[in-house]
Amino acid sequence: MSDDIRLGIIRFFQNHNLTGSKLVVAVSGGPDSVCLLHLLSTLKDELGLTLHIAHLDHHLRGEESRADAEYVRGLAGSLHIPVTIGQGDVKAFQKVNKMTLEEAAREVRYLFLADVCEKIGTHYIVTGHTQNDNVETILLHIVRGSGTRGLVGLRPLTPKTIGDRGLVIVRPMLDITREETIDYCQQMRLEPRTDSSNFELSPLRNKIRLKLLPLLTDYNSNISEALLRLSSSAADELEYLDGQVAELWNKVVTRDGEVITLDREGLQNVHPALKRHLLRTCLEQLPGGLKDIESRHIEDMLSLMDKPSGRRIDLPYGLVFMAGYDTLWLGKESELPCPYPWLDGEYPLTIPGVTELPGWHVEAKVVHALDREDNSLVAYMDFDKVGQKLNVRTWKRGDRFHPLGLGAEKKLGKFMMDARIPKHWRRNIPVVVSSSGIVWLAGYRLDERVKVTSQTRRVLRLEFKRG
Amino acid sequence: MSDDIRLGIIRFFQNHNLTGSKLVVAVSGGPDSVCLLHLLSTLKDELGLTLHIAHLDHHLRGEESRADAEYVRGLAGSLHIPVTIGQGDVKAFQKVNKMTLEEAAREVRYLFLADVCEKIGTHYIVTGHTQNDNVETILLHIVRGSGTRGLVGLRPLTPKTIGDRGLVIVRPMLDITREETIDYCQQMRLEPRTDSSNFELSPLRNKIRLKLLPLLTDYNSNISEALLRLSSSAADELEYLDGQVAELWNKVVTRDGEVITLDREGLQNVHPALKRHLLRTCLEQLPGGLKDIESRHIEDMLSLMDKPSGRRIDLPYGLVFMAGYDTLWLGKESELPCPYPWLDGEYPLTIPGVTELPGWHVEAKVVHALDREDNSLVAYMDFDKVGQKLNVRTWKRGDRFHPLGLGAEKKLGKFMMDARIPKHWRRNIPVVVSSSGIVWLAGYRLDERVKVTSQTRRVLRLEFKRG
Repeated sequence: MSDDIRLGIIRFFQNHNLTGSKLVVAVSGGPDSVCLLHLLSTLKDELGLTLHIAHLDHHLRGEESRADAEYVRGLAGSLHIPVTIGQGDVKAFQKVNKMTLEEAAREVRYLFLADVCEKIGTHYIVTGHTQNDNVETILLHIVRGSGTRGLVGLRPLTPKTIGDRGLVIVRPMLDITREETIDYCQQMRLEPRTDSSNFELSPLRNKIRLKLLPLLTDYNSNISEALLRLSSSAADELEYLDGQVAELWNKVVTRDGEVITLDREGLQNVHPALKRHLLRTCLEQLPGGLKDIESRHIEDMLSLMDKPSGRRIDLPYGLVFMAGYDTLWLGKESELPCPYPWLDGEYPLTIPGVTELPGWHVEAKVVHALDREDNSLVAYMDFDKVGQKLNVRTWKRGDRFHPLGLGAEKKLGKFMMDARIPKHWRRNIPVVVSSSGIVWLAGYRLDERVKVTSQTRRVLRLEFKRG
Repeated sequence: MSDDIRLGIIRFFQNHNLTGSKLVVAVSGGPDSVCLLHLLSTLKDELGLTLHIAHLDHHLRGEESRADAEYVRGLAGSLHIPVTIGQGDVKAFQKVNKMTLEEAAREVRYLFLADVCEKIGTHYIVTGHTQNDNVETILLHIVRGSGTRGLVGLRPLTPKTIGDRGLVIVRPMLDITREETIDYCQQMRLEPRTDSSNFELSPLRNKIRLKLLPLLTDYNSNISEALLRLSSSAADELEYLDGQVAELWNKVVTRDGEVITLDREGLQNVHPALKRHLLRTCLEQLPGGLKDIESRHIEDMLSLMDKPSGRRIDLPYGLVFMAGYDTLWLGKESELPCPYPWLDGEYPLTIPGVTELPGWHVEAKVVHALDREDNSLVAYMDFDKVGQKLNVRTWKRGDRFHPLGLGAEKKLGKFMMDARIPKHWRRNIPVVVSSSGIVWLAGYRLDERVKVTSQTRRVLRLEFKRG
């Protein structure tokens, strides 16, 4: 059996072009990591590996934590491999950063491992994750509801940014079961500590390991294989979709700082599945990434793609997804480009008729009924109330109007602020005024006093189009 | 609440263009189907539906089954909807067809429903499957290990062939929970039978309903939403992949009876995920379909795609996947086309040199060493043993040779049979003979007596190419 495991490890390092590399081996002292360390120590000459052991003393279980550290130090000595034992105050870190204990433990451990990588000059951290860990991870993701990407589980090589360092987590034992690592340790007369990392498990992962998996095994004795097969086909399909997204990306995405712009035309006739993937990929590039992004966000973004200019969706981390004319923007609100052209001065509108303004083309028609139009740059008003003398200008300090539905007067500046219109847009938005005041903030709100009612005899339809 | 449900049903029939249609409503007498029936009866005028109730008395629980049937008959009467009560002997059907009780019950029920469809002239069977049924189905597929396609669960419309009839199963209640159907029945003062269809559940589905789901709900109170979200993104991705496969299909697949031919060149540079989907789609078209196809079969087929002509894989239901020169074949062994041209008569080979034969181009070279070539139409032999006088012909009754590695003489006909070479190929395979006997069955086996050994001084390399 141990020969099979050895061969598997050799093939892993060869297939991933990792022979000859320098590795930080994360060793907790439990059977998985002790098995991994021993295997690597017996193979290091054959594979040209330079090993350095890293163990973090979490100070979470007092004497026992110290004893784990001593055990790893002793093992390192007997295998003649250099070791760094770190000290981490997880509880203090948790307090400062307000996270769960297991989040804090993971964070502190990765920061420590990144430091050791820096010290010895490598990017590779090798861990003893087994097939069991992978199956548990897949189930954890299913239970938490993380979508098809969550089915992928643990990968043999995972790039990871820790602090500002780009590292790679290497997992050579994903084809080996936990039971096999225990057997291996017995065969090699190694005496690992009972797996001291268990306390770092989330309560949910612990329940999955101890209760859910045994139940599922009772239903299907090959449940691990079933889940791993599901995982591998999901991974395969995702890889394909990711490739398709990469092609699409080159055609429709431009990025300027932290604003991502999508070309609307290029997205027509693209399958929704690909659009969803593209949106997720865009979000990944921005601060906050996919953290806190739920599928309803993606669905909302998807439907915004067919909405008229000016529509927006608020996303976590202050991000906004907004429809422009030919494009869609994703980014921090304050950084979104303004979709309105610069408009200087005040211009009379021809009513009815067409008026050409700098950057705008305005159509005014007298109509009999209002249409339900999904276009924020169209407004219907009572022609007899607004009259024929209308001007267009932009916001002036002191402007006030009666926003439709509010039932009160409001400062235009305050209205735009409350409507969360980005600051640098506000000076560009066309304001339509009659002799008795503002009748329409184009793209946003009509004035209550000119709305169409059952008494309206003639309706004026105004439409702004980009000139 | 019942208004929401009504609206949902109306929208369902409108969105799927099912208004104005004739429906067979499958009613067991439990809350789900009684809720469905009542909803449809109140909406039938508005949606222009013609309803016909179908209920099967399974005779599985004696008096209770009979009472269920009477209940449904009574309900039909009070709602003024025609009803067909069928009688099915599930136990007898099970015995004859050797299936589990729940398989037999499902089969008998569908055959009955298909009959009712025929009688009233429709293709639509409406069932009361709820969101809970869907969640349970998704979990059932995960537990059984059915791959990403299994994540899709129950679909609103599912085409189904029953006997030789193409029917459509319509499920308008997949957004409604089981609890909601029970509430609805209470509100409407309907008194459904306790769900009499439970006995048809597989033991595994029952465990999932009664044990696994409560456990998962304890881990994540929104587990149903989580699973449905996973399901819908899997469905979305699969739909996309299916679309891609359909495009690829048109380019690389031809079908002749029950033999499917794939163009090798057209499959180069196609992503493995897409190839896997294509292979599954091909298998679906043939007898046996995807039943008993495991992912190892697909993986084996995938790797055969890069293998030389002549390689084969045996699949369930007597299917074979075989590599030809420019193509790959999938089909019943006896129906696979022969990759070898017809060769009539006996021809001398020019050695060394090139010989053109009907359909073949044969190259003979004297070389110093043998290359490892993954090409079954190349052979290396001891030049001094075979000599310069070689002929090519096909199999003659009575031919014998010493297959390499066998250590004994064997009849050529028996060898070809044991090597499972399709019968109609055997007369076409080139046989290379020297004055002292057969030296090579091209594409299959060298003769032991002419093999290259450490004593060999000069090596003859023979290669057959399609002319």
